[in-house]
Formats: sequence, structure tokens, C-alpha cells
Amino acid sequence: MSAGAQAAPIYPRVALIGLGLIASSMARAMKAEGLAGHIAGHARTAATREAALEIGFCDSIHDTAADAVRDADLVVLAVPVGAMEAVAAEIAPCLKPGATLTDVGSVKQAVVDAVGPHVPQGVHFIPGHPIAGTEHSGPHSGFATLFENRWWLLTPLPGTPTEAVARLRSLCEAMGSNVDLMDPPHHDLVLAVTSHTPHLIAYTMVGVAEHLRRVSNSEIIKYSAGGFRDLTRIAASDPTMWRDVFLTNKEATLDILGRFTEELFALQRAIRIGDGQALFDYFTRTRAIRRGIIEAGQDTAAPDFGRSKGTAA
Amino acid sequence: MSAGAQAAPIYPRVALIGLGLIASSMARAMKAEGLAGHIAGHARTAATREAALEIGFCDSIHDTAADAVRDADLVVLAVPVGAMEAVAAEIAPCLKPGATLTDVGSVKQAVVDAVGPHVPQGVHFIPGHPIAGTEHSGPHSGFATLFENRWWLLTPLPGTPTEAVARLRSLCEAMGSNVDLMDPPHHDLVLAVTSHTPHLIAYTMVGVAEHLRRVSNSEIIKYSAGGFRDLTRIAASDPTMWRDVFLTNKEATLDILGRFTEELFALQRAIRIGDGQALFDYFTRTRAIRRGIIEAGQDTAAPDFGRSKGTAA
Repeated sequence: MSAGAQAAPIYPRVALIGLGLIASSMARAMKAEGLAGHIAGHARTAATREAALEIGFCDSIHDTAADAVRDADLVVLAVPVGAMEAVAAEIAPCLKPGATLTDVGSVKQAVVDAVGPHVPQGVHFIPGHPIAGTEHSGPHSGFATLFENRWWLLTPLPGTPTEAVARLRSLCEAMGSNVDLMDPPHHDLVLAVTSHTPHLIAYTMVGVAEHLRRVSNSEIIKYSAGGFRDLTRIAASDPTMWRDVFLTNKEATLDILGRFTEELFALQRAIRIGDGQALFDYFTRTRAIRRGIIEAGQDTAAPDFGRSKGTAA
Repeated sequence: MSAGAQAAPIYPRVALIGLGLIASSMARAMKAEGLAGHIAGHARTAATREAALEIGFCDSIHDTAADAVRDADLVVLAVPVGAMEAVAAEIAPCLKPGATLTDVGSVKQAVVDAVGPHVPQGVHFIPGHPIAGTEHSGPHSGFATLFENRWWLLTPLPGTPTEAVARLRSLCEAMGSNVDLMDPPHHDLVLAVTSHTPHLIAYTMVGVAEHLRRVSNSEIIKYSAGGFRDLTRIAASDPTMWRDVFLTNKEATLDILGRFTEELFALQRAIRIGDGQALFDYFTRTRAIRRGIIEAGQDTAAPDFGRSKGTAA
């Protein structure tokens, strides 16, 4: 993001439906750069609306989604994937002709199926997904730099005007993101690999630890620095959001889970029969991907994510 | 660690066999606090010995382990678990009567079985395991504060003099660790949960991503911020060390893996049949363990391990 003089807003009026980590980060990023003339917000619960009002990242807070989207040039659905259809049905009659409707759901085909049929003629529906987040949720957890150097995937449907896509893209880029276009099913497969299945196995491992009676929870907590604690961070993510991800990206997740189980069984067999060479070879290959991620600027090279107090000599 | 005047060393002469992440961190921590009068070091490869000489964390570097341990009051085996028996056999005739022999292996019963029979009468063998590390390895990766606020488990055998255990414990504590005593089989079960199985599933998930042909490696790298990149850090750990861990902690790892697969299948079934309540309940319970780890000071509460550039408002 630049620190220079502010240009004209990309969208005169933006409506955010749902005011959690992603929407509140978007609001903060748009405010920091003057990307929206007016930001209207709506959240389902009064507590979240009050928190948003108090923090002040929106210009107006509305009790209903329908009110919030009136006259908006861009409407962002930032609710769990399972809640998108009801919201879309509610706001559809109030959407301004020529407006763009996007979402930030972690699954795309299910959103296309749920929201698409409700979108009125003349409104441009461009599904999207910022690959950014933390394990925290709610309006207090957002921050303006969340999207910096992260990828924002857009999955426009055939026939969407290129100007509408270009405008949304420029907003994502102005918030610090890199943008790629993709079709919805491929998005869902890629994310099943880089996000959905990793979350499921992290949740599972934490669940196993919690259920084990021969090892106490206090032992698990005390000795978690051996690797387990990293999984607990992933497994601390919002339960509603993740329930909906798995319910709506069922096929791709089950596909990748099947491959995961196959590979795990192969390694388990290598352990059982004492095949050290197979283990060594497997563990050597996986180092290259880590290097690639660091070189691509998608993670820090500092040991232990820079969490350790000391620095390597 | 204190910054005040230095007391007498806890051990006049310490020998480190193996000069990777753990031993080089121990050397730096002992030097910083004056805990050892003289630190002798040995590594198997000339390249590591030369690196250690150049960095200067040892007072003397020896071409053989037998040379390094002569006259040492404390000998630390910091080599992969699979290499411990050969080293123990080599150094046994050179160990000073009354000396303490310890190790830093991630598995304890196998080390007891491999090293124990070689330990001469009058030498106190106290197996140990610092639950600390990063994904980096080698003599350059060590730092003096690696052990601060981490647990160091000691698994002394019956009949070990309490003074010898107390002395080793005081060294670990002086390097910043908390110390717990445990019997070797229980250690191996606890670590199978908090470290070994998490590493295996991380290696597996990274392997799955790498083998998948429908998703390119470049896509996996670009969109890794959704959770996957955390697993790649764990899966970047030293392959030799981890091969040996799984070969030598076979039973406990297979036991926990069996439970992991069971739970994973239960969640997979919930996804397949669309049981959202089961998923939501499971994902809610796992949040408590994360809170416990943060409250116990074993991880940072900062979102995303503090890796994100921004701070939450």
C-alpha cells in the first residue's frame, strides 16, 4: 500500500455483510487507502454490530442486510458459506443495477450454486476468496495489512463484463493482494490441498490428543513445543466457518483425504516393517516445497516462524 | 538466565558428541552463563567440525568421540537416535569414573536399550530430551535461548544417584528449561502424541500435495497461506533424525496413528453424510487445548504466531 496522496475511491459505496476477521480487515484496509467513499456494514448479531460501531471501521451500521446494500456499488458477502444463500435471497431485491456482488468464502462452487440464482439481471456476481486469515475471529481481530502479499482468487462466471472484474481486481490489489483468476471447481480442489485437508488433519490430531486417557491434557500442553502446538493454532479456527467448508467442499476434500490416507498407510507400513530408506527419502523430498514457499514470500524463513526469542548465529 | 556475576561452572568439563542444532545451542547457552569450565566437541563430518571451530562455541574440537570425552564430567550424546549405540560403544572405555552420560534423543526407551549396556560401572547414565528445536539443523542453527521456558525431560534409571540427577537438572534449569522426570515408556507415548505423530502427518500432507498432478507445485506454494505452510515448516525438519525417531518409537507411534486414523475416518464419515453438528462440536472442543498452551506459556497468543505484519486493533 502506498503512503502517498489518496486517489478517488474505487467504489463510491461498499456494503459489507458479516463483520468478522475478513470484512473488518477489508474495511480497515479500504479506509487506510481511501478505496471506498462510504462503507456500510451489517452483522447478524447485535453484539457484533455494536462492536463494529464502537471500533469505527464502518461509516454506517445497519440492522438488516437489505438496508446495508441499498445504493452500494460493491456488496461483499463475508458470512459463513452455509449462510450465503439466505443472505443472497434477502438482499437480491435491494441490489443496485450495475453493482458488483462478491463474497470471501473459502469454497467457490457451492457459493456459485447458492448465490448465483438469486442475483438479479444487471448485477455482476464475481465470487472471490482471499487466502489470508489468522486463527482469530470476530470484528476485533481484523487489521489493515491482513491481505498484504497474499493471493486473492476471483472465480468470475462466463459472461461477466471484463470492466467489472478489472475494477474488483484493482480493489484487491490496492489492499495489498496479488490476484489470480480461476474456475470454481479448480479453486475448490486447490484449496482442499492447501487449506481444507490440512485443517481437518490438524483438528483430528488435536482431538486425538484430547481424548487420550493415558496422557493427561496437562502433559500435552506442557510438552507441545515438539510440533503439536502448531497444529493447535490451525485447529483453533472458527468452528462454524470450517463446518461449512467441509459440508460444501465435500467432494474435493474427500478426494484429497483419500490420497492422504493412502500415503499415511504407506508411511505407517514403512514404520512397521522398519523401512528406514523409504522414510528418509520421503522426508527429504518434502523439504523442497518449504523452500519454495519461503522463496515465494508466503512464509518467513526465520526458524520457528520467528517465534523463538533468540536468533540463529 | 541471569545477567549477574557468574558462579562456578556446574561441570568443569563437558563433551558434546554431535554438533547440530541442540548441541550447538547447549554450548552457546553454557558459555553465556559460564556453566561449563571447558566444552569439548566432536562431530562425525569434518565439515561440521570445521564449522564449529569457526563459530567458536566449543573450547576444543576433536577428531574422534573417544578423544572428546576424555576427562569429561558430563558427556552429551547429541546424534540421531540410530547412531547412539555405535558412539556409546566407542566412548565407553574412555569415560571418566563418576562422570554423567546423557543424551538429547527424541525417543528414550530405545536409547536406554542401545546405550545402557555399554555404560561402565561408576558412570551415571541419565537419558534426557529437551522439548525444543526449530526446523533448521546443523551447527549454524543453534542459539543460546533455545531452551528458555521449554521442558527438558529426564528419564533416569532406577538406582541412579540422586546427586547426579540433581546436578544435571541444575544444568538444564540454568539454560532456562523446566525439568520433569518421567519413565522412558511414558515419555515415548507422550512424545508420540505431541511430536512424532504430528510430524508424520505433516510430512504426509506435504507429500500428498507434492504428488498431486491436477494441482501444480506453483499453485500449492502460492496459495499455501491457508494452513498448508504451517505443515511444511514441520515437514522441513531433519530427515535422518526423524527416520530414526519412527524406527525406534515404532509401537507408540503406530498406536497413536491408529487412533488418529479412527478419528479421521469418523470426521470423514461426518463430511460424507453431511453431519454438520458432529463437525461443529468437534471443532469447538479443540479450541480449549490451544488456550491451555497459550496460558502455559508454550506458544504466543499473537495471531498467526505473530508472523503477520499488522497487529489486531
